[in-house]
Amino acid sequence: MTTESPGTRRPGRRPGNSGARESILVSARELFASNGFDKTTVRAVAARAGVDPALVHHYFGTKMELFTASIALPVDPRDVLAPVYETPVEELGHALASALIGVWESPHRDAAVAMFRAQIAGGDTGLIRTFLLEVALEPLLGRIDLPEGTGRLRAELVATQMTGVMLVRYVLGFEPLASLPSEQLIEIIAPTVQRYLTGELPDGAGSDHHGTGP
Amino acid sequence: MTTESPGTRRPGRRPGNSGARESILVSARELFASNGFDKTTVRAVAARAGVDPALVHHYFGTKMELFTASIALPVDPRDVLAPVYETPVEELGHALASALIGVWESPHRDAAVAMFRAQIAGGDTGLIRTFLLEVALEPLLGRIDLPEGTGRLRAELVATQMTGVMLVRYVLGFEPLASLPSEQLIEIIAPTVQRYLTGELPDGAGSDHHGTGP
Repeated sequence: MTTESPGTRRPGRRPGNSGARESILVSARELFASNGFDKTTVRAVAARAGVDPALVHHYFGTKMELFTASIALPVDPRDVLAPVYETPVEELGHALASALIGVWESPHRDAAVAMFRAQIAGGDTGLIRTFLLEVALEPLLGRIDLPEGTGRLRAELVATQMTGVMLVRYVLGFEPLASLPSEQLIEIIAPTVQRYLTGELPDGAGSDHHGTGP
Repeated sequence: MTTESPGTRRPGRRPGNSGARESILVSARELFASNGFDKTTVRAVAARAGVDPALVHHYFGTKMELFTASIALPVDPRDVLAPVYETPVEELGHALASALIGVWESPHRDAAVAMFRAQIAGGDTGLIRTFLLEVALEPLLGRIDLPEGTGRLRAELVATQMTGVMLVRYVLGFEPLASLPSEQLIEIIAPTVQRYLTGELPDGAGSDHHGTGP
């Protein structure tokens, strides 16, 4: 469930190490869930786990890699979404739906579904919030913030559609939707995602509830 | 968590009765989840619980009321959706979004959210499937089955959007979406629901995967 680059795994490590690894992961989950990604430092995770920060880097690499390991994701979400960040804004809906459904149709599906269910079942929905809004969608926010102040609401609207697809297709397995070819599903969903990213919103939606105005 | 009409509750009932009630609910959940609503009979529930069918009717009333109690819903979903079933097909998107979000904004919210989370967390997603497709959306299926064979896929697409709203607004509580006035949310979501109910679908979507053709 955790990721460890073979290059950093030392043969013959003592059993005690797995205790430190697990402590780091537990601390990371707690801090990412309560404080979010940006405000969580490797130093704070290390302090909470009672280890040296160098050990966190040694086991997990960067803060993003630590985050990926802490939510048991097999891939770095920003690698998956890298092509989306480069896509012209008027084609973002299709690109984003394709990238997400692409992961869910890959061998990574089980891990993604397991994480999703565990997060919803457990009390700590903070991790999924951090993942979706601060990690996966954050690089898009500036490009979809039109009119100013609506970017976050737009990202959350996209989240309503995409989490619902995850739920109905992969968790609930409703047929015929669960067996619909993914290209057809993407074609159906993409206009919704595009409208939420760049379409009209009711007057005042988003910006009134944002608290980022001057 | 269970509903019991005050009119059917007898004062001074013996403690043993609550055991029979609970057995009936457990049996009902199991059968509704594995066999669906239509194929589950009150007689079968009673047999599984080891009680007389008359006792099931005595405690719970109709099969629909038993279903409502078994998933711990405080309201009959078909009562909530009754106005939707009468709505002209071209206005269904708005009517359906309004009816569902209306329940979720009512004092019934906690029960609805609790049921939703429990179903996803547990293994028995059969109950939520039965609820959504056989009970809540079933009366609509005939009206949205154009071209023929696409009705069920359309209902499931609606489910992707509405379960995602439930998740992001009420379970995850993402802001600003969680605090968006419900009228604005309905206005944003309704065109998506309408498009899934009556809009174009890719060639062959739905009907190829249905198994109901002649």
